[in-house]
Amino acid sequence: MKDVKAFVFDVFGTLVDWRGGVAREAAAFLQRHGRSAQEADAFADAWRALYQPAMEKVRRGERPFVKLDVLHRENLEQVLAVFGIDARHLHAPELDELNLAWHRLDPWPDTVEGLRRLKSRYIIAPLSNGNIRLMIDMAKHGGLPWDAILGAEVAQAYKPSPDAYLRTADVLALSPDQICMVAAHNSDLAAAQTCGFRTAFVARPYEHGPAQTIDLQAEGAWDWVAADLAELATQVI
Amino acid sequence: MKDVKAFVFDVFGTLVDWRGGVAREAAAFLQRHGRSAQEADAFADAWRALYQPAMEKVRRGERPFVKLDVLHRENLEQVLAVFGIDARHLHAPELDELNLAWHRLDPWPDTVEGLRRLKSRYIIAPLSNGNIRLMIDMAKHGGLPWDAILGAEVAQAYKPSPDAYLRTADVLALSPDQICMVAAHNSDLAAAQTCGFRTAFVARPYEHGPAQTIDLQAEGAWDWVAADLAELATQVI
Repeated sequence: MKDVKAFVFDVFGTLVDWRGGVAREAAAFLQRHGRSAQEADAFADAWRALYQPAMEKVRRGERPFVKLDVLHRENLEQVLAVFGIDARHLHAPELDELNLAWHRLDPWPDTVEGLRRLKSRYIIAPLSNGNIRLMIDMAKHGGLPWDAILGAEVAQAYKPSPDAYLRTADVLALSPDQICMVAAHNSDLAAAQTCGFRTAFVARPYEHGPAQTIDLQAEGAWDWVAADLAELATQVI
Repeated sequence: MKDVKAFVFDVFGTLVDWRGGVAREAAAFLQRHGRSAQEADAFADAWRALYQPAMEKVRRGERPFVKLDVLHRENLEQVLAVFGIDARHLHAPELDELNLAWHRLDPWPDTVEGLRRLKSRYIIAPLSNGNIRLMIDMAKHGGLPWDAILGAEVAQAYKPSPDAYLRTADVLALSPDQICMVAAHNSDLAAAQTCGFRTAFVARPYEHGPAQTIDLQAEGAWDWVAADLAELATQVI
C-alpha cells in the first residue's frame, strides 16, 4: 500500500450525481416559470459548462479567490439569460435557493459504503472545488462520513492548480506520496500525480448522461483503477 | 432557539482532557529517561503554560501564522529545559512522537454522545486553536463525529482574535448570531460574544486538576449554561 495514509476525493461526478440533482431542482424551477421540465438536463449541462471558465479567472489571478457558491450564483444568472429567462424579474431568494441545488446532490449508490470502508483504515476528505459549507450540507444530505472538509476553500486555490493539492498535503502533514487522489476525471488525476500524489480512477460513465464521451476509462498510469468505490476499498484495505 | 444553525466548540479542556492525556504520555517519556512519573502532571501543566504566550506572538503579528503542532513542538523543547532534560541528547523522532500526545487526548465521558445529539439538528465543528491534522487524529482516536474541521488553521488566526470567529462565520455562510460558541472558558465566550456569536458555557471544573481555581462557573451573560454536553443538548434540541 505504499504507505498511503489518506484518500482525498473529487466530489462532483466522482461521488455525487450533479447532473441528476441539479436537473431535478431546475425542472421544478422551470415549470414554476411556465417552461418545460424537459429542458432541465440541458439547464444543468449549461450551468456546469460555466464552471471551469469561472474558476479559470481565479486560477489565472484575474480575480481573488471566491467560494464556489459565489461562482455558481453568478453563472446561474448567465444560464437564465441563455434560456431566455430575465433574472431581473425574479426574486433573489428564489435564485439563492436554486443555487443551493449543488448542496443537495445525491451520492452514487456505492459512495457512502465505500467511504465508510476506506475511513476505517485511512483519513478521508473531499479535495473538491466546492466550498466548505457546500460540502457540509452535501455530507449531511447524503450521509458522507468525512473526517474533515478539505479542498479549494481551505487551500484558497482551485484544482487543477498545484496549490490545491500541495496545500492539502501540508494541512494533512503528509508528503504527497502518502495521499491518494480519487477521481472519475483523468485530468484531475494527472494534476495530482504531477504534484506527487498517488492516484485512483473510478469510472463514472453516466456522469454526463447516456451520451457521455469523455472519461469513460483510465487514460493514465494511475496507481489504482476501479469500477466503483466498493471495488477500490477492496483493493486497498 | 434564536435561529441558531451551528454549534462550534472549544476543544482542549471543553471536550477533551488535555492534562490527563499529556501527563499519561509524559509519564512514560520521563520514566524512559530516568525521571519519576510523579512529575508528569507538572510537565503537562508547564507545557500548557507556554501555549498562550506562543500564540500571542502570532496574534500580535510578531510572526506569521504557524500551526499549533509547530508551537507545541517548540514549547516542548522549552519544557524539557525547565525539567533539566537536554533536548540535544534526545532523538528528534522521540520528541515528534511525544508532541503527538496532543493528537491522542481522550474525550470527557459526555462528549461523544452530546456531540452526536447536537449533530442530529445542527452543524457541529471544532473552533479550536488546534490545527486540522491534530483535530482529525483526535476525532479518529476518540470518535468525535464532526461535520467539518474548522478553527485557527482554516481562519489563519488564533482565538481570541476576532478573525478566528468571524472567518469561521464566513466559511459557514452564517451570520454570527446563527452560531453558538461552546466553551468551558469564560474568556473564549466573551471574545465570541463580542463578535456577535451566541454562547454556551459548559463547566469543566477538573480541567486543571483537583486544585482548579478558574472557570469554575459562568461569569458572563451567556445564552446557555450547562453542567455537561448532555445537558446542553437537552436544552437546545
